[in-house]
Amino acid sequence: MEPTETDALLVEFMDPAASVYRTVQSNEDSGVAELPLENNGRVEGRQTQRLMRQRISDDDEMLDIAMDGRDDHGMEVPDKSHGSTHLMDTLDDLPPGIGQYDDFHTIDWLRDVARDRMRHRHIVKKRQDGCWEKLKSAHDAWSGWVCVFLVGLAAGSCAGIIDIGATWMSDLKEGVCLDAFWFNQEQCCWTANSTTFNAEGDCDQWFTWPELIGSVSGAGSYIIGYLLYIVWAIIFGLLAAMLVRVFAPYACGSGIPEIKTILSGFIIRGYLGKWTLLIKSVGMMLAVSAGLSLGKEGPFVHVACCCGNIFSYLFPKYGRNEAKKREILSAASAAGVSVAFGAPIGGILFSLEEVSYYFPLKTLWRSFFCALIAAFILRSINPFGNDHLVMFYIDYNEQWSLQELIPFILLGALGGVFGKLFIKFNIMWCRYRKFSSLGNFPILEVLVVTFITALISYPNQYTRMNSSELIRLLVSRCGPEDEMELCDYNRNLSTPHPYQSSAVASSGVHSALWKLFLALIFKSVITVFTFGLKIPAGLFIPSMAVGAITGRMIGIGMEQLVLANPSSPLFANMCEQDSCHITPGLYALVGAAAALGGVTRMTVSLVVIMFELTGGLEYIVPLMCAAMTSKWVGDALGREGIYDAHIVLNGYPFLDSKEEFTHTTIAADVMRPRYWRYGIGVRNDPPLCVITQDTMTVEEVEQVMQNTMHNGFPVVVSRESQYLVGFVLRRDLNLAITNARKTSEGIVSNSTVYFTTHVPPSGPNDPVPLKLRKILDMAPITITDQTPMETVVEMFRKLGLRQNLVTHNGRLLGIITKKDVLRHIAQLENQDPESILFN
Amino acid sequence: MEPTETDALLVEFMDPAASVYRTVQSNEDSGVAELPLENNGRVEGRQTQRLMRQRISDDDEMLDIAMDGRDDHGMEVPDKSHGSTHLMDTLDDLPPGIGQYDDFHTIDWLRDVARDRMRHRHIVKKRQDGCWEKLKSAHDAWSGWVCVFLVGLAAGSCAGIIDIGATWMSDLKEGVCLDAFWFNQEQCCWTANSTTFNAEGDCDQWFTWPELIGSVSGAGSYIIGYLLYIVWAIIFGLLAAMLVRVFAPYACGSGIPEIKTILSGFIIRGYLGKWTLLIKSVGMMLAVSAGLSLGKEGPFVHVACCCGNIFSYLFPKYGRNEAKKREILSAASAAGVSVAFGAPIGGILFSLEEVSYYFPLKTLWRSFFCALIAAFILRSINPFGNDHLVMFYIDYNEQWSLQELIPFILLGALGGVFGKLFIKFNIMWCRYRKFSSLGNFPILEVLVVTFITALISYPNQYTRMNSSELIRLLVSRCGPEDEMELCDYNRNLSTPHPYQSSAVASSGVHSALWKLFLALIFKSVITVFTFGLKIPAGLFIPSMAVGAITGRMIGIGMEQLVLANPSSPLFANMCEQDSCHITPGLYALVGAAAALGGVTRMTVSLVVIMFELTGGLEYIVPLMCAAMTSKWVGDALGREGIYDAHIVLNGYPFLDSKEEFTHTTIAADVMRPRYWRYGIGVRNDPPLCVITQDTMTVEEVEQVMQNTMHNGFPVVVSRESQYLVGFVLRRDLNLAITNARKTSEGIVSNSTVYFTTHVPPSGPNDPVPLKLRKILDMAPITITDQTPMETVVEMFRKLGLRQNLVTHNGRLLGIITKKDVLRHIAQLENQDPESILFN
Repeated sequence: MEPTETDALLVEFMDPAASVYRTVQSNEDSGVAELPLENNGRVEGRQTQRLMRQRISDDDEMLDIAMDGRDDHGMEVPDKSHGSTHLMDTLDDLPPGIGQYDDFHTIDWLRDVARDRMRHRHIVKKRQDGCWEKLKSAHDAWSGWVCVFLVGLAAGSCAGIIDIGATWMSDLKEGVCLDAFWFNQEQCCWTANSTTFNAEGDCDQWFTWPELIGSVSGAGSYIIGYLLYIVWAIIFGLLAAMLVRVFAPYACGSGIPEIKTILSGFIIRGYLGKWTLLIKSVGMMLAVSAGLSLGKEGPFVHVACCCGNIFSYLFPKYGRNEAKKREILSAASAAGVSVAFGAPIGGILFSLEEVSYYFPLKTLWRSFFCALIAAFILRSINPFGNDHLVMFYIDYNEQWSLQELIPFILLGALGGVFGKLFIKFNIMWCRYRKFSSLGNFPILEVLVVTFITALISYPNQYTRMNSSELIRLLVSRCGPEDEMELCDYNRNLSTPHPYQSSAVASSGVHSALWKLFLALIFKSVITVFTFGLKIPAGLFIPSMAVGAITGRMIGIGMEQLVLANPSSPLFANMCEQDSCHITPGLYALVGAAAALGGVTRMTVSLVVIMFELTGGLEYIVPLMCAAMTSKWVGDALGREGIYDAHIVLNGYPFLDSKEEFTHTTIAADVMRPRYWRYGIGVRNDPPLCVITQDTMTVEEVEQVMQNTMHNGFPVVVSRESQYLVGFVLRRDLNLAITNARKTSEGIVSNSTVYFTTHVPPSGPNDPVPLKLRKILDMAPITITDQTPMETVVEMFRKLGLRQNLVTHNGRLLGIITKKDVLRHIAQLENQDPESILFN
Repeated sequence: MEPTETDALLVEFMDPAASVYRTVQSNEDSGVAELPLENNGRVEGRQTQRLMRQRISDDDEMLDIAMDGRDDHGMEVPDKSHGSTHLMDTLDDLPPGIGQYDDFHTIDWLRDVARDRMRHRHIVKKRQDGCWEKLKSAHDAWSGWVCVFLVGLAAGSCAGIIDIGATWMSDLKEGVCLDAFWFNQEQCCWTANSTTFNAEGDCDQWFTWPELIGSVSGAGSYIIGYLLYIVWAIIFGLLAAMLVRVFAPYACGSGIPEIKTILSGFIIRGYLGKWTLLIKSVGMMLAVSAGLSLGKEGPFVHVACCCGNIFSYLFPKYGRNEAKKREILSAASAAGVSVAFGAPIGGILFSLEEVSYYFPLKTLWRSFFCALIAAFILRSINPFGNDHLVMFYIDYNEQWSLQELIPFILLGALGGVFGKLFIKFNIMWCRYRKFSSLGNFPILEVLVVTFITALISYPNQYTRMNSSELIRLLVSRCGPEDEMELCDYNRNLSTPHPYQSSAVASSGVHSALWKLFLALIFKSVITVFTFGLKIPAGLFIPSMAVGAITGRMIGIGMEQLVLANPSSPLFANMCEQDSCHITPGLYALVGAAAALGGVTRMTVSLVVIMFELTGGLEYIVPLMCAAMTSKWVGDALGREGIYDAHIVLNGYPFLDSKEEFTHTTIAADVMRPRYWRYGIGVRNDPPLCVITQDTMTVEEVEQVMQNTMHNGFPVVVSRESQYLVGFVLRRDLNLAITNARKTSEGIVSNSTVYFTTHVPPSGPNDPVPLKLRKILDMAPITITDQTPMETVVEMFRKLGLRQNLVTHNGRLLGIITKKDVLRHIAQLENQDPESILFN
């Protein structure tokens, strides 16, 4: 391990089997939606130069007003410049490309934010120059709002299209609408205006495949239906897997772990590109329609973020500044959850709690706007034809009793245990996939899982139906119009409100319970194998389905228990005049929340999403009890949620902002090189690579760059007294020297490189000196070697640093990069020898 | 102006007329609820020592495991200690009191957080020692939850009591329930079970004062009622003002500006004490009952924070750590809004958006819990007897049309303008009060305002009633049971749903409009004079009332306009079959949101609060349009909300985390001393006060402390080469020296003070050296002089710094304190020469 190795090397530390990175890197024509770097850089470079020239005069003017006496300002230190040499001045007169990031690099938030403020100041200044500039300034001020408006619009539309497509294709597995094949079953029957629904909700215009083929009833019909169901499922699964494999490898999975990593300040080019968007959208429809145990709610976040990324390129303010772009992406992820659950407020809180790393409060308002627009658009599209944004909207408002909190807490505990087990087995399987030859056959794996899923699903009506339909069924209350098994109660229809009180279960309910139990087992197991397949796959719906099944079963049990003992003092207040009020649907809802909480470890956002689904404060307390229990039980068994577990599995450089750093190490224990005074460190730590401010030649500097892969180099006063002057990035240095050699006359290998303001006069035969003060960051963040790592971690998180220089009594000792911190944390906490980052 | 002056001096900069500070400081037996500092300090000091001793062995053990090879660790620098000398070790073996803060001081978040983590590690370590320690550890882990549970309980109960008390006393102004005088009008009539309500909602058991006195009708009755109304109002007002004046001067105002400041890391002792809680609660009931134009919703936040502060003392983890205590206070402020509006989610978002400064995400969940408990308790108390938490719950769910967005946006703009004007005039009046002799007669001022308010209010029914009742009336829909003026429409009762469509207004509506207009003018004007009186006074309700009146008027106008032109293409889709659907109550709701948004500049939390009031996504779009317009219009006219304006007015040291720093200054422009190289700076900047690490005597150090009021002193290698070694706090240094002189033998005035590990052997006649390395902070945060102020401000905000040392090439140049930053920002932005902080 080298000190301060460049982040580009990170990819080396990633899982060698994670073919997705390699594929994309070697397959440039695949999913890379970003503008080509070179182009980007050049445009920006030019613009930056213009900005800079303008700005210098601005500064003087402003400061003269603000701080009189500024001109007397001077420092004893020899290389202190007279005026103010800001961080951002260093970009002036530079070759293009400086200020950009390479793929798989970590961004420097401070630098990007400063760059944006400079741009902003420039625009404010120019506003005086006339109407056109005023207009441009107004456009700039509005662009954030316009951008999130467009993102909301796009996210809502995508969600609508995906919902409609998935419903249609899901129904296609069972039959077709002959009048208009592009209608799904529900729409088909609507347009037909038919009143002759049969028991399964069929109407005249809707033909199941057996009906079409001619075998209307009997075993033959069943077998034909079964076979066609499997065939369609395999076709959809194959298509989804092939599309992902061929066009956009990044479109697989839920995308949330990667989005968390990207929002924490990491660059993964193409992950949010237009190909990914397209393939993920289509793939989601296909994967859901294939009947696999996965949902489209998580991937909606990825889709919305793709929209965010694509639209941000319309606005250079966001598209060309990685830190600013993340504001749009935060808003987009809120929109994603908003359309997934029809919960705009839940969306913001999800974005805040779960996804975003660096969430400036001013983006809260914009995120909300974005989430709301998306929800509004989705409602206008009305994909489910029922004026609600989601399939499982709860429209009852029954009271619950205090003693029901016991089963609710039990559900929470079960949810926590389920979450932990699910995470454990899923990670085990994913790790096996990574390190075995299984990883080489992603399409085959999808086909096998699809086949098994379809084979087992069809016979059981609760697994055959779409997971979100199943959830809707489970959380709903049995009304007069429900004739299904699950509502087969012995109701006393002579009472005034027979459907508002509980009733004794009939045989139908018993058989439904058995089927639900089988569905529970099947879904729990198959989801472990499904999440991680190389197709778009969300986890919200399957885990909610598992929880809802458990909840409904416990709810029915509770209902029957109370009905059997209506006079027991335990249940006294739940029954009045022989009618007891227990809503098994509420148990299903609570169970769904608990299971989702156990898997994802969401808290506030989970409760708020559920609150928005039910639309009343009535059920917040049960939901909260379950969510809290689930989180605590889950955390007691293992602290990581599924997303964090996948981040660790894939070795993404994600510095969790929620986990506290509780160790007592100090900066000197983490910095590289560890033992600087020995020249060559123990454990092969090479000495710290520094550049001196006024003694090294171009060749020497180039030598230093060639010999090391460091991301940047500290500049010191001299080798003997290593007092820190500044920090220069490898990328900038490289570009500057290459450019100088090409364009400037007289720059040769033994030209001296000066980072000082004052360059001593050189004799006629001396080579022309190369002045590089412009690319020197004069304000690197430094800490002392005695700083506790708690503080260092805090600084990395909150300031979004890329590296931190360590000094002692002013002398440079070493450097700590974000990766050093991550490695250190893992070393202290993670006893898992298989941890990817360090293999 | 001195460099790095101690924050204690801040109080000097505050408004000399703000007698509240002086009063409390000189009046120790008044409202100071905190435990006495000395006591506190001593207990903590002892505990800290114990912790520290324990910890050192922990560290070695842990680190030996984690980082093998640690023992080879050594540095060339002479004073580098062998082991790790952490920031927190410096508290070891110290006299008591170190680590505490004085009143009106700024806290150091990093230090407090580190202290808490150390305490946590100690507990984790001790857990091995047996069952009792395990229990203590569990108690510690749970204490945060228990504490917020108690806070929620207390906040909900306080709110319930205040609501009931205020309603009862408000009704007392007009009459009394003879059967049970402790009932308010509504309860009185309920218990009477009377069905003979008269037009004003009276029943048999409720007697108005004229009725009791015997004059049942006519002018005499009116005059008696009028007089008694005024008399009661003046009694209530006088009581409120006297209570505040005598017992708890901090109980005045809304408290939100001060809570923002406290949460940003400032100490105001007694502001959240039990006297303040008691007097604020009673004073709120009295002030609301006096009929003044103020609300109790804002002060609920203060009341809840008082509960938070008081309960935090039950848990030393929170009570003795100012940074941790602020986590509880954040949760408490969420609970305050939760009970004020029955909006737990709105409460969290308010706490997040408006109040909290440093909101760790993990407290989000706890805040939610706290807010929910509070709302639940309040609902159980059921102060309004209608199962809702607030007076103005909206229970209709009418559709709105797209073209209605135009009046909604208009309402938003009006709200923004109102907000700006209100802030402007209110601040003008408050400034006048401060600097004129008016400030010396707070009770008289309250009496005069109360008298004028009562005098003008009584004749107009809309001003006579409670503001929150007025809002309820305005946002409600006219139903069949409403017989008041405002619902005097010519309805066609033969249609199936006569109350669901709009109708032509009758004379009653016209007269109501006139009265509402007068009420609008009166309320707008009187609120300017009311907010700032020395009584508890919230601003939410009066501004919402103003907005609701405007909204209702515009709503009725819109309704009549559409009814007059039902066939106009503009309104075509709003009318069907001669019945048009416009809900003036919705306009009132939107108007209320707009006015509140204009005054407070809340955004997401405002919309969410309104959303929770209405309980449906239906009206989010209108509300959002209005809130956005209001915020934009308001911001265009002046960026400060009322709370920020009051913070500036009172000169609180609040570093706004929402405002961006957009200037181009660098650290060298801000640090003190400005011109260090001249020895004595321009503008009388004295040279930087430093302490050397091994050359100064005790007397010299004492001299330095006597000559300056600085909060702390940098320790350098030597005066000649000012390389920074560490930072020592004045308070710690003072305590350490005083203690050493008392307890250690041989410490005399010319003992040398050593901050180094290695102390040279002294001759037999030399005085005993004083070793103070323990109190030296070896990890002060440093920046270079070239760091842009943007970055510096970011560091202060995000890391919660108290000061930042400025270096150049490793040499110490100066220091920047939080106050320097605040002064710099004000200097650059605030052209107001009367700015308090700098007078």
